[in-house]
Amino acid sequence: MERVAIIGASMTRFGERDGWVRDLLAEAGEACLRDAGVAGSDLDHLYVSNMASGEFEGQTGVPNALAHDLNAMPAYTARIDQTSSSGGAGVYAAWQSVASGASDLTMLVGGEKMTHRTTAEATDVIASLTHPAEYKHGVTLPSFAGMTARLYLDTYDAPRESLGKVAVKNHRNGVDNPHAQFRKEVDLETVLESPIVADPLRLYDFCPITDGSAALLFCPADVAEEYVPKDDYVTIEGIGGATDTHVVHERADPTTMGGVADSSDDAYEMAGLGPDDVDVAELHDMFTILEFLQSEDLGFFEKGKGWKAVEEGVTDRDGDLPINTSGGLKSKGHPLGASGVAQVYEIFAQLTGQAGDRQVEADVGLACNVGGFGNCVTTAVMEGHR
Amino acid sequence: MERVAIIGASMTRFGERDGWVRDLLAEAGEACLRDAGVAGSDLDHLYVSNMASGEFEGQTGVPNALAHDLNAMPAYTARIDQTSSSGGAGVYAAWQSVASGASDLTMLVGGEKMTHRTTAEATDVIASLTHPAEYKHGVTLPSFAGMTARLYLDTYDAPRESLGKVAVKNHRNGVDNPHAQFRKEVDLETVLESPIVADPLRLYDFCPITDGSAALLFCPADVAEEYVPKDDYVTIEGIGGATDTHVVHERADPTTMGGVADSSDDAYEMAGLGPDDVDVAELHDMFTILEFLQSEDLGFFEKGKGWKAVEEGVTDRDGDLPINTSGGLKSKGHPLGASGVAQVYEIFAQLTGQAGDRQVEADVGLACNVGGFGNCVTTAVMEGHR
Repeated sequence: MERVAIIGASMTRFGERDGWVRDLLAEAGEACLRDAGVAGSDLDHLYVSNMASGEFEGQTGVPNALAHDLNAMPAYTARIDQTSSSGGAGVYAAWQSVASGASDLTMLVGGEKMTHRTTAEATDVIASLTHPAEYKHGVTLPSFAGMTARLYLDTYDAPRESLGKVAVKNHRNGVDNPHAQFRKEVDLETVLESPIVADPLRLYDFCPITDGSAALLFCPADVAEEYVPKDDYVTIEGIGGATDTHVVHERADPTTMGGVADSSDDAYEMAGLGPDDVDVAELHDMFTILEFLQSEDLGFFEKGKGWKAVEEGVTDRDGDLPINTSGGLKSKGHPLGASGVAQVYEIFAQLTGQAGDRQVEADVGLACNVGGFGNCVTTAVMEGHR
Repeated sequence: MERVAIIGASMTRFGERDGWVRDLLAEAGEACLRDAGVAGSDLDHLYVSNMASGEFEGQTGVPNALAHDLNAMPAYTARIDQTSSSGGAGVYAAWQSVASGASDLTMLVGGEKMTHRTTAEATDVIASLTHPAEYKHGVTLPSFAGMTARLYLDTYDAPRESLGKVAVKNHRNGVDNPHAQFRKEVDLETVLESPIVADPLRLYDFCPITDGSAALLFCPADVAEEYVPKDDYVTIEGIGGATDTHVVHERADPTTMGGVADSSDDAYEMAGLGPDDVDVAELHDMFTILEFLQSEDLGFFEKGKGWKAVEEGVTDRDGDLPINTSGGLKSKGHPLGASGVAQVYEIFAQLTGQAGDRQVEADVGLACNVGGFGNCVTTAVMEGHR
């Protein structure tokens, strides 16, 4: 198994963007090539993380178009889809391409173009990942989030306010992220009084619908310094992926995300590291409640104690374990196929000292990307080399 | 780089099928597990090759559903899309998962459900892979095929009849394939007098629209015999993938498929084998003309001489290099995401002596899966162990 490095990273501004997903992918891809100082024609493999360009734009075959736009032909291309965790699945695919020896230089570009569709249309495309019986009964992902939040608050005696504090924290982080969709602080009162979406969750407990793209460049770790200086790359020390039940009602405990636990077990084992070694993490806060669940199932906090860590500021930027320094999906935005790639972009920036006003002290970082309502998950553990 | 074996293979009947793609995937997946005598719960990774379940059925997240249906949780899942070569891209992904050491047992299931949509609707979904400017001018894949066929016939002094003979040969092979959509011989006159679709190509020069699924099971070659006897598995000796231009008019010579040449160069090099070593091959005959082009760009025949090989019977089942013993896409059918997987199923069957009435003498086989009009291609070279 070849050890794999990430030697370049980029992302576009997230938010409402003009153009097509192809334009956004090219923007991120070109910036990533510049970041590492390589040409598109140097690429062996080029992967695109994208859930639904066909459904959103009537356009498929996007990886082939991107190979043209980046002048990467005849690089091998493919699209990787794992619904909202397509980005993490792309990271795993890119890692495999280098770890297997099939490619010496692989680019991954994740992206989605969504805001030209109405919220109802976009939600409908996303809901197509659920079981038809769930869909028919109106149990979309936000509904699951509301029911799970209620169960969590009741089971673990957590105050409603603790969920709101996830939104407040992540919005505060987003202010310092020039790529974020929302760069504005919100106070707890605003979150708690925003319109109800799925009781007890309110508007500010949800991530927005977003356009955007992010890109990463992978090579064997033993040649990373032929491309970039020592302090400009990270290594993937461990990576894993796992599924949980396709229908949520089959889970013994809906407040536990089995895919998060299983994928991180694999990632920790490969890395020879554990949750205590992680200095900074990007979690999939599509809904505020998900940040609690993941922070527990990754082993950062005991079951039912994730909310306390947020209350006590442990996950703040100046806390012991900063979570979602990028602003998270909550304020940075959630362009489906881009999100898992952008999580790794943030960890890359933090571990190479390029995170600007968001910079924290960190040698080891973790990214956890969740598809569906925990249906499929990838987790990666990375190390900086400074 | 871990050497990779295929220890199980299956496919459903191709044709007009009831149910959803999920049902077809489960049917092929279960049969493949039985073929190798393993359980779904033994799987580490589970990939689905599928181009457009969202567009055809309004259903995404299919790999997660399949993990449920095969009782494969918490196996990692993802969908691999490379348009009409999604199957070949899935083979490459599954190979990478084992070659990298990430998985010790990987299943790939490819499938597509199309016939519930009209031919116009299905063609429209497929045409979404072309450049919007091509699409707007009505240059769908069948149009490209017509223009390329005319250019080929003119450039290489090939008779129109030679194209028809591809259809005749592949229909003859399909008669002996219990999985094929069309199990009927056609004579040359029927082909040459069928309705014109894209001059000079006629109805019988085109593959049909098809429902179906196929599955393969991969493990490290050094443990293959712990699962199955020596004569029941094949090894992937070489594999490669490549792109050609996204827009067809940018190609210097439209009768050359650059992606076929580039991907097979990589596959031959990894295998330490060349075109002369290949005993049997499955090519992507979505249109009859494509069988000529690929047989030349894979190095089987000189440029412009592929048509002569067909005329002389070289590619017949009793010829020196049997091509499309399965009946090819032409008579077996072309359920997009399944086709590249079913090509490897046929090579597996031939190399393990399980091809029944279609059996030929072969130790080395090749599968070439083409996306778009040669936009992206994967090629695999396999060896039997008897």
